[in-house]
Amino acid sequence: MSLNAPQIIEALAGLVGPGAVIGDPARMGAFLNEPRKRFHQSAVAVVQPGSVEEVQAVARWANGNGVKLIPQGGNTGLVGAQVPLYGNEVIVSLVRLNRVRSVNADAGNMTVEAGLTLEEAHRAAEAEGAMLPLWIASQGSARIGGVLSSNAGGIQVLAYGNARELCLGVEAVLADGRLYRGLNALKKDNTGYDLKDLLVGAEGTLGIITAATLKLFPLPEAHETAFISLASPTQALELFYRLRQRAGSQLTAFELMPRFGIDLQLKHGMIARDPSAGPSPWYALAEISVPRGGAHGVLQAGLEAALADGTITDAVVAESLDDRNLMWATREQMSDVQSREGASIKHDVSVPIAAVPQLIAEGSAAVERIVPGIRPCPFGHLGDGNIHFNLSQPVGVDGKAFMAGAEPVHEAIYEIVTRLGGSISAEHGIGQLKTELLKSHKDPVALEMMRAIKQALDPNGTLNPGKVLG
Amino acid sequence: MSLNAPQIIEALAGLVGPGAVIGDPARMGAFLNEPRKRFHQSAVAVVQPGSVEEVQAVARWANGNGVKLIPQGGNTGLVGAQVPLYGNEVIVSLVRLNRVRSVNADAGNMTVEAGLTLEEAHRAAEAEGAMLPLWIASQGSARIGGVLSSNAGGIQVLAYGNARELCLGVEAVLADGRLYRGLNALKKDNTGYDLKDLLVGAEGTLGIITAATLKLFPLPEAHETAFISLASPTQALELFYRLRQRAGSQLTAFELMPRFGIDLQLKHGMIARDPSAGPSPWYALAEISVPRGGAHGVLQAGLEAALADGTITDAVVAESLDDRNLMWATREQMSDVQSREGASIKHDVSVPIAAVPQLIAEGSAAVERIVPGIRPCPFGHLGDGNIHFNLSQPVGVDGKAFMAGAEPVHEAIYEIVTRLGGSISAEHGIGQLKTELLKSHKDPVALEMMRAIKQALDPNGTLNPGKVLG
Repeated sequence: MSLNAPQIIEALAGLVGPGAVIGDPARMGAFLNEPRKRFHQSAVAVVQPGSVEEVQAVARWANGNGVKLIPQGGNTGLVGAQVPLYGNEVIVSLVRLNRVRSVNADAGNMTVEAGLTLEEAHRAAEAEGAMLPLWIASQGSARIGGVLSSNAGGIQVLAYGNARELCLGVEAVLADGRLYRGLNALKKDNTGYDLKDLLVGAEGTLGIITAATLKLFPLPEAHETAFISLASPTQALELFYRLRQRAGSQLTAFELMPRFGIDLQLKHGMIARDPSAGPSPWYALAEISVPRGGAHGVLQAGLEAALADGTITDAVVAESLDDRNLMWATREQMSDVQSREGASIKHDVSVPIAAVPQLIAEGSAAVERIVPGIRPCPFGHLGDGNIHFNLSQPVGVDGKAFMAGAEPVHEAIYEIVTRLGGSISAEHGIGQLKTELLKSHKDPVALEMMRAIKQALDPNGTLNPGKVLG
Repeated sequence: MSLNAPQIIEALAGLVGPGAVIGDPARMGAFLNEPRKRFHQSAVAVVQPGSVEEVQAVARWANGNGVKLIPQGGNTGLVGAQVPLYGNEVIVSLVRLNRVRSVNADAGNMTVEAGLTLEEAHRAAEAEGAMLPLWIASQGSARIGGVLSSNAGGIQVLAYGNARELCLGVEAVLADGRLYRGLNALKKDNTGYDLKDLLVGAEGTLGIITAATLKLFPLPEAHETAFISLASPTQALELFYRLRQRAGSQLTAFELMPRFGIDLQLKHGMIARDPSAGPSPWYALAEISVPRGGAHGVLQAGLEAALADGTITDAVVAESLDDRNLMWATREQMSDVQSREGASIKHDVSVPIAAVPQLIAEGSAAVERIVPGIRPCPFGHLGDGNIHFNLSQPVGVDGKAFMAGAEPVHEAIYEIVTRLGGSISAEHGIGQLKTELLKSHKDPVALEMMRAIKQALDPNGTLNPGKVLG
């Protein structure tokens, strides 16, 4: 006997107060409409617990009454993990759990609640003279719980790691309401299985993260940033290897971009001027973070050597904060500009970094064979092997017709990625978008292990049904 | 109906060949006698598969026949995870799986088999001009599978992370013989649960690791090393904070030692001369790794500033490789020297780094109350909050009587550690030594989750029975 919507809403109101339950579909828009507007399913209710105990009460009740829960942070995910799949789910919004519990700048950690936005977390760290080195495009609205549940990456994974590596411990409510008290600030703790890393990246299917302890780093004294002209991705890779040799972990970003994306941004007025030294098929944005006692000029010296031996063709080193901001804006707008140029097909993939040139060459050739005139715009985190293999529609064709033909394009890219030992979802996760893709591309034993773990930790299937595992 | 020893030996010989099965107890010594000689249980047999397929065959057969398996690498673990608990187990020695499958220095990874020693892995990386930054005392005999299964730490966790963080992917045989193909060289892969990190640190209870892909780093151009005199652990902590501000992730080691441990090494002739600038209650060994394009002199400058404002009282900066070797030998012999001074009680614990001074002060006072005249020798990885809280017997008492009174000493230390938010096993794991301690100190929900995962992945309890979870 399953409960109907009014019964569910009434029961939830009894647990968290009527003011913290939204049952009116007209008021649910912000919780249902995700960034790319791909998913259009309703929810029974949105509940906004005001404490960890209330999250526990909601889970305990739902688990005992066959009600399904979807944990949600800032609703910025791109694969639909945080929005309904069946329409009978309750969204558990963590927005009210938004306290900074502690910041220890010297010791290098902070403990924050799931509902704090990433940008608020940045500010809390910086107010104490420290840095939380996790930057993603959606950081103004993405919240810590979602950032961790999706194991967000971004532009400085190269040096500091992804969300998982930046997380020391989590607190999470399990499907049946039990509280996993895994907050700690320890760099070394070998007391049993790594439950933290299991909960991080599980997209809310194994637990509802309510708080986390995150690593903080000293603020660098300066940044050295350059926009570098290159003949090909192969040269970019070679330059990356050399700069890492010179700078070690102080090389904190190395991004690849094609000329096409810069031309588009100039055409659509998204950048005021060209950040580069002039036309070139490819560019790298490289950045070195100099600590207080570190060496300045490492980037300049590395680029001079690379210019001398022909690895690069030219470079602009940022001479002001304005220069740096322009370079980063160019990189950050690389995805958005494509929507101004019509329809685009996107892939968030990774391969071993040595295979990036092959991925780009083979991928570009394969999609051109399928859709003549298609305009590839592969860009992204070369230093992590993570390429956003985006493809703009041919000039003059109908956008809808182009998108209707997306499937063979996806297949071609994912075939190459898998053959090169890569991942079909480098950053964005699986959610509801890629569950079928996961089944066809993931090691079958890994899938069996994942299902066994899901069954062990959430036997009633209360948390985020249908996500990740399908 | 359980099989007897001859039946087991015969069946195993059928799977891997008679030459790869040891059934004679007289030939099992090297597999049963672990470093501290605490555990004295026999095994039915030792089997040494020569391929991943043979490991699978052994697991499949054992799982179907009620035979229990203990994965073993170099047999260097300190908590008895790798030796029998009940006497009816079969040890699966991975020593024959010892190939280097690939080394990609520029791309920063290598894939090696479980039976390769850590030192062999170091050499394979260095031969290609790269560095595997994981150094532990037992690296000459510890093997990659055990290093990962115990999530080994060591002296450079501060900058590079522990074994888990240095591992990109693993290949592992599950309890029923299925092969998890999780080797990859990807820095970003958000396709489902983090199975790699679950297998790493599971002490062989969830799978038998057969190979791993590990991160490699550029070799530094130089090391700057200093042996620093300090009034107290509080000053050491303050110095650590400042050096990290100056050097960022180039501060690759920060170790704390008491004068007592140096006096002992001089007394027992383990070091030829005092590496320090003279008597001082405490010392830090700090090291900065300078990349090819980096800044020299950062350590010297940091120490001069700290001397000027009284944070430190003196320092010796290594001026030769001999100096550096002496400093590191002093640190590395800190544990061994205690056995020359009679009996000692040891604790491998961690606390949030800001709490290290409190741990040392409260711990030393507490044990002195229990055993007057006890000689504390707390030392270790201050930068990671990981202190080896070792205690030498009072002068002139009977060593056995001292050890017979160890329990209240353990309780006192573990009570303080737990109260400070620390871990009762920072590096060495749980094995069979600390299973009861784990039950009394670990979050009960975490224990329930661990049991559920164990049941899900090894329902017959084939792998390493009684370890970790008891």
